[in-house]
Amino acid sequence: MMPSDKALVPFVSVDHMMQLIHRVGLPQMLTGIACAIEDDFRRWEQFDKTPRVAAHSDVGVIELMPTADETHYAFKYVNGHPKNTREGLQTVTAFGLLADMHTGYPILLSEMTLLTALRTAAMSALAAQHLAPKGSKVMAMIGNGAQSEFQCLAMQTMLGIEEVRLYDTDPGATAKCAANLAGTGLRVIACKSAEEAIEGAQILTTCTADKKNATILSGNMVGPGVHINAIGGDCPGKTELAPEILTRADVFVEYPEQTRIEGEIQQMPGDFPVTEFWQVLTGAAEGRRDAAQITLFDSVGFAIEDFSALRFVREKALETGMMVALDLLADPDDPRDLFGMLTRSASVQAA
Amino acid sequence: MMPSDKALVPFVSVDHMMQLIHRVGLPQMLTGIACAIEDDFRRWEQFDKTPRVAAHSDVGVIELMPTADETHYAFKYVNGHPKNTREGLQTVTAFGLLADMHTGYPILLSEMTLLTALRTAAMSALAAQHLAPKGSKVMAMIGNGAQSEFQCLAMQTMLGIEEVRLYDTDPGATAKCAANLAGTGLRVIACKSAEEAIEGAQILTTCTADKKNATILSGNMVGPGVHINAIGGDCPGKTELAPEILTRADVFVEYPEQTRIEGEIQQMPGDFPVTEFWQVLTGAAEGRRDAAQITLFDSVGFAIEDFSALRFVREKALETGMMVALDLLADPDDPRDLFGMLTRSASVQAA
Repeated sequence: MMPSDKALVPFVSVDHMMQLIHRVGLPQMLTGIACAIEDDFRRWEQFDKTPRVAAHSDVGVIELMPTADETHYAFKYVNGHPKNTREGLQTVTAFGLLADMHTGYPILLSEMTLLTALRTAAMSALAAQHLAPKGSKVMAMIGNGAQSEFQCLAMQTMLGIEEVRLYDTDPGATAKCAANLAGTGLRVIACKSAEEAIEGAQILTTCTADKKNATILSGNMVGPGVHINAIGGDCPGKTELAPEILTRADVFVEYPEQTRIEGEIQQMPGDFPVTEFWQVLTGAAEGRRDAAQITLFDSVGFAIEDFSALRFVREKALETGMMVALDLLADPDDPRDLFGMLTRSASVQAA
Repeated sequence: MMPSDKALVPFVSVDHMMQLIHRVGLPQMLTGIACAIEDDFRRWEQFDKTPRVAAHSDVGVIELMPTADETHYAFKYVNGHPKNTREGLQTVTAFGLLADMHTGYPILLSEMTLLTALRTAAMSALAAQHLAPKGSKVMAMIGNGAQSEFQCLAMQTMLGIEEVRLYDTDPGATAKCAANLAGTGLRVIACKSAEEAIEGAQILTTCTADKKNATILSGNMVGPGVHINAIGGDCPGKTELAPEILTRADVFVEYPEQTRIEGEIQQMPGDFPVTEFWQVLTGAAEGRRDAAQITLFDSVGFAIEDFSALRFVREKALETGMMVALDLLADPDDPRDLFGMLTRSASVQAA
């Protein structure tokens, strides 16, 4: 018995996602997702927004990140378990879903471990386009884990970054990142310290995984005229920057209600001034004012970014056929007759 | 390139779920799920609980229902769109996920449209075992939609109900329900009014779908010594009972924080007295006290019930093999090397 069309949800597996990225092209994926995020951020007020719903344990967190506009609903399931790496598992895995608000029926289920790396990099580069010093050519990449190459490539593609200066407490991670970036056209410098990595850099990206209040950048390391792209501080008790950097910088955030709980600014009083980045895109707020300013994008990742990425992937999956139809929804001929569908399936099986 | 074991999540499709139910047996599924719910309700305080996260539109709602204990995490995605039936779609569709709290990795993805019908019926029967008059033999089933047959069979299996008296504003729905129940051993009476349906019934089950404050049962219809199993009042603005019934009854609920928003008691003041049903199971609170009492289970459905149902289904799916492995999680050999996995997949495809 074949399920009906309505019962079938397009599913993009990990393998499909990889094929989709190769088919579309990684730079095109990054810019496409950034455009989708920009479109959605510019209509920020049309979205139903809520801080993510988290289940914490001693070793990690599992989160649901829902959002909706009038026509579509999306959520992402994502975990964060820093100790996983030692067990041969991903720190962060994710999948997500897009649904039709009019019927409540899902219209896409997708892997989002890869897609989250892409949308996070696209979001970072979109913010840097508006906040980094004009003509930035050098980025320090501190933390060379699973996200790092995507960050470097998004900054190359969308800002014209020419040199990335890598540092990680584990030299093996730096070697992995450097090897992966060979042949991309980026000048890649492996550094022995965070201090060495930030030499001459206009953009400082921090993306480390320890679930604790760390000081990846201290106050004396950050001079005028830089943009800090802080990604790793993304849950309660997990930060990367010394508080004095926050007081000297102009701080831009996605959704303050969530960032005050999870971001670098969790270290600051509840009324610490921040600018909502979507307002920079609409022109309601100013981005970078002058060359000497320190800008900080305190990025924790917000549900609308996943919504945008899923919208983009659905379009590309339908275009390229990189998906399968998943028998996820029960769809009896008579919608009130769920029971009849069940009993009829027994006689079909017995026949 | 085959994904590794860690990348693969057992998936129970709609077709698998139907096969699983036939293999295990519907009565055994209902009692098995009821046992799992009872086990979990008895350790209620070990769960991380939160009211569900809802996205409302003019025509319906999409909800996420998460919960977790120390070892497992579960959530359900569920929509409620009463107008869907007119468009040939299900009012309620659902799917759910079970994950390992230690790693954050999903360990089961399952359809839950059918499973929600089963767990709702199992929950109703579990509550009725403790709240309905001893020796109840007759149930009125008001609202003969997709849930109704499951309700009738759970009450037959778990309480020994012998007669069900069906009523729906749409006689076609009643005819469908009666036809489906033929051969189950239940005496099925199709009724022309709610008043006729409740004649001689010890259990009154209401399960209607209109998203409005309706009066399916008015005060003068409910005499002493009955148990009301109210299922249809399950979101803000959607109730089925006249308020005077609530004041005369002893009201039992799943999770008061959620029921006060969504259940029948949304009609009452915020301090309206209720008993948490899990406390009846542990013995901390009394269930039915005497034969004349009116008991009301104001059921809205709670995340722990889905958690229990998913636990039970995972066990049965692994036993029966009624599942497929879904390539949902990116799992590179080196967990930090997501990018390398992506680039290597291109050369494999090109080869």
